[in-house]
Amino acid sequence: AQSSVTVFGAIDLAIAHYKGEGTGSKTHLVPGGNQNNRIGVRGREDLGGGLYAWFELEAGYSPDTGTGLNSNNNNQETGLVNTGGALTFNRRSLVAIGGGWGELRFGRDYVPSFWPLYIYDPFRTGVGFGGVTILGSTVTNLRASNSIGYFTPGCDPYLCRGLFAQVMIAFGENPSGTPQEDNGKVAGLRVGYATPTWEASIAQSRTRNDTVREFTQTSGGGAVEAGFARLMVLAGENRTGRPVAALNNGTRAPFWQLGALVYAGAGYVPIAYTRVSRNDPQDSHATKLAFGYVYNLSKRTALYTTYAHIENRNALALPVNVGADAGPAPLPGRSASGWDVGVRHTF
Amino acid sequence: AQSSVTVFGAIDLAIAHYKGEGTGSKTHLVPGGNQNNRIGVRGREDLGGGLYAWFELEAGYSPDTGTGLNSNNNNQETGLVNTGGALTFNRRSLVAIGGGWGELRFGRDYVPSFWPLYIYDPFRTGVGFGGVTILGSTVTNLRASNSIGYFTPGCDPYLCRGLFAQVMIAFGENPSGTPQEDNGKVAGLRVGYATPTWEASIAQSRTRNDTVREFTQTSGGGAVEAGFARLMVLAGENRTGRPVAALNNGTRAPFWQLGALVYAGAGYVPIAYTRVSRNDPQDSHATKLAFGYVYNLSKRTALYTTYAHIENRNALALPVNVGADAGPAPLPGRSASGWDVGVRHTF
Amino acid sequence: AQSSVTVFGAIDLAIAHYKGEGTGSKTHLVPGGNQNNRIGVRGREDLGGGLYAWFELEAGYSPDTGTGLNSNNNNQETGLVNTGGALTFNRRSLVAIGGGWGELRFGRDYVPSFWPLYIYDPFRTGVGFGGVTILGSTVTNLRASNSIGYFTPGCDPYLCRGLFAQVMIAFGENPSGTPQEDNGKVAGLRVGYATPTWEASIAQSRTRNDTVREFTQTSGGGAVEAGFARLMVLAGENRTGRPVAALNNGTRAPFWQLGALVYAGAGYVPIAYTRVSRNDPQDSHATKLAFGYVYNLSKRTALYTTYAHIENRNALALPVNVGADAGPAPLPGRSASGWDVGVRHTF
Repeated sequence: AQSSVTVFGAIDLAIAHYKGEGTGSKTHLVPGGNQNNRIGVRGREDLGGGLYAWFELEAGYSPDTGTGLNSNNNNQETGLVNTGGALTFNRRSLVAIGGGWGELRFGRDYVPSFWPLYIYDPFRTGVGFGGVTILGSTVTNLRASNSIGYFTPGCDPYLCRGLFAQVMIAFGENPSGTPQEDNGKVAGLRVGYATPTWEASIAQSRTRNDTVREFTQTSGGGAVEAGFARLMVLAGENRTGRPVAALNNGTRAPFWQLGALVYAGAGYVPIAYTRVSRNDPQDSHATKLAFGYVYNLSKRTALYTTYAHIENRNALALPVNVGADAGPAPLPGRSASGWDVGVRHTF
Repeated sequence: AQSSVTVFGAIDLAIAHYKGEGTGSKTHLVPGGNQNNRIGVRGREDLGGGLYAWFELEAGYSPDTGTGLNSNNNNQETGLVNTGGALTFNRRSLVAIGGGWGELRFGRDYVPSFWPLYIYDPFRTGVGFGGVTILGSTVTNLRASNSIGYFTPGCDPYLCRGLFAQVMIAFGENPSGTPQEDNGKVAGLRVGYATPTWEASIAQSRTRNDTVREFTQTSGGGAVEAGFARLMVLAGENRTGRPVAALNNGTRAPFWQLGALVYAGAGYVPIAYTRVSRNDPQDSHATKLAFGYVYNLSKRTALYTTYAHIENRNALALPVNVGADAGPAPLPGRSASGWDVGVRHTF
Repeated sequence: AQSSVTVFGAIDLAIAHYKGEGTGSKTHLVPGGNQNNRIGVRGREDLGGGLYAWFELEAGYSPDTGTGLNSNNNNQETGLVNTGGALTFNRRSLVAIGGGWGELRFGRDYVPSFWPLYIYDPFRTGVGFGGVTILGSTVTNLRASNSIGYFTPGCDPYLCRGLFAQVMIAFGENPSGTPQEDNGKVAGLRVGYATPTWEASIAQSRTRNDTVREFTQTSGGGAVEAGFARLMVLAGENRTGRPVAALNNGTRAPFWQLGALVYAGAGYVPIAYTRVSRNDPQDSHATKLAFGYVYNLSKRTALYTTYAHIENRNALALPVNVGADAGPAPLPGRSASGWDVGVRHTF
């Protein structure tokens, strides 16, 4: 029977070899070398008079094992929904109403400061992903639950045209009158300007977080279509209100990145150079160079390969990728590297 | 590609403010202010000669966080399937065979005594829901696992016409010869008469439950189409075999409710007045008044608002809603109230 | 809206009564008496030049309770993904690229030695399933995560024609240089020859497993279309590197089975006789006889009934079925039996 919804998703797996200097290597099947794995349903309804509604429920999963990913109930460190590897709509769960006045969204969605990190990175995921250098620390660096968002007209669903802005607030859902009343509250803003040939935007998201006091993610960047390539620049900073282990006992992790998608045949060469530092006691920093090739068999299916190398200095020991398949972290101040060869199919 | 199944569901989120007298308030994003959130697949096959088969797999979820809801393995207090917030087909999981002789259902389904509580309540969920006053105590007050059900002809899938009856038995699935042999066994019956303009029905479900000895849910009511409104009356009782905390150390929670859906423009005003009591040592009782407005943007999408106030007397301390988003329970004998403004979209 | 994917599945529930001699009986609703319950999405894309891609994400579930099933992260005893009963794509999660040269698969898939156990068994699941006698012991006796598979041309997706072969390797995903470096590594092979009227194949899968040292599953068999029936023979062995409780403190569980699907009216009579032994200290063995009837109401919907009896000798105490709904294990050396009556619907 015909549904009013579309089932959509991506399945992406790569054979990968990652190593950390002084700590060994790992050969494994990694999910999401080119695109993060997801399966979801979405639908849109025209309500007349320019008004519309849409929704999206999107679950992340790991196709190497068939398992799902966690969500967070309250944007707090304690709010992790530990499903032990079962499916949730952790990536997105929202309903929206929109019209000529813009769009209101309710539910779980990306924080505004995530979008520059995504839009101006040529890799976006996998071993080439520059965000490896700053992500991974707190609960709202990608998404927030219990959120209300507003987008100015023309964002579909996150790529905008002209002068645009996005605002998000999200609830921590604590009872009033408790010391933790504000824990998990999120507020974020993104503003930018985009044309078909160039765009630029900046964003910031702040989360009240009793563990790190306040988590502030700032990001900004731009992109230019140069004919032979799409050139990108990206910069940002993760900041906490007190020193945390995830930032190597610092409170700030600033970074910048130069990237490009160089068109080549039936595909493109993604390339990025990233530099991140920490205001930790050792004044640590790291640089990452990544490049690859994505060969499109069709609009939906691609073969790809990636190589990345990260040089840590002082106390930093960043592995070459993030998450469950990060690969071995090197000894502090040493390098890590990795390659993958994979297939990505969207549906 | 075309499937033989339909993907269906509802996504409903509201901004809500609930408070409990003497205990504070909470502003949050609540799921299901107008309709409980679900996503499922269903299908139906014509087998010829009037025979047919259908199935439904329906998962509840919380769109504010993207997380799922639990099921129960054996209709026992110990049978909770604690998925930690991941998706299960907790709402419904059944296959049915039907024909001119009626319909047989196998799997997880609603107990017969649930239906009057649903059909004759103008709110059915959210802060206006009158069932707040009696539900929430035991594992089979909504659904039973391991069930076999029979419906007389003409019920599709629960709304019936003419003189009708529904029977359910469900297994606790304990080995024979153990003291708990009957723990989790369910038996239920619903009988009624329905025409397009009025209907009435009564139901009872009994569960052998080693914690409370036996849980008996009785419900009954009726509805009349009065042109300007649909008028409803509902009454029932939850009874346990021994005093339990969930019934405030009583064994009986009788209640009655008057409700209506008053048609108004492109929508309707739901309104309900509920009175519940407990045979607890303090002879406690409570009354609840709720009203709202549901504005239909289309058949599938609505905006709504609700206000509800509950007056507790003696030892009762009912919050204004049930479940994970119940809001603060007031001090015993005090009031609780709440409002919401939300959007509901079905697909 | 139209999707590029198909939602598919099966729902199968039966009323069953199982007993174990000396230990009692159990009447329950059992899932999968005729076909294992699943829900999934799959899709296929033609890439031109004979090249194609396909994927499948398939979740097992128990429709009696609406709950899901576990997967395994690393093909190791410790890698169980304990979701507490929530949904995962535990049955299958793979993406494949194929062409005139065969097909490559990546993800979670069946091990090669599973296929003869499936193809040459007239029951495949439920109380009649002969595999009851050998399965249930280790993590890779059905499927492996993190796998790479190759199939010769003409297998769609597992039934092949002509001379064919299948190879699988799977990663345990341990860091190099650790004592457990090889734990969870899988290698498997299946070779066979098939025509429309007869076929034969053999297979073996080996898993490095630190608990049992090495787990080796060997299987082989054949089938002939005899007009009135499909006749089948099946034999195999599960072997471990050290004595394990799951093999009754033996290291080898060889078995053989004769089976048939006898065509009868709008259905067929499945029948199987199985003999299994253990090289345990008591030199135990067991025989199982199972038969039933499957009545097809349509291609998608069937009613069925099954009876099975198992005779244990010496220390063996096999129940009549496997898994969560196995029924009571008899006293050692005694018999177990069971029947079911159910309905199966595919979609």
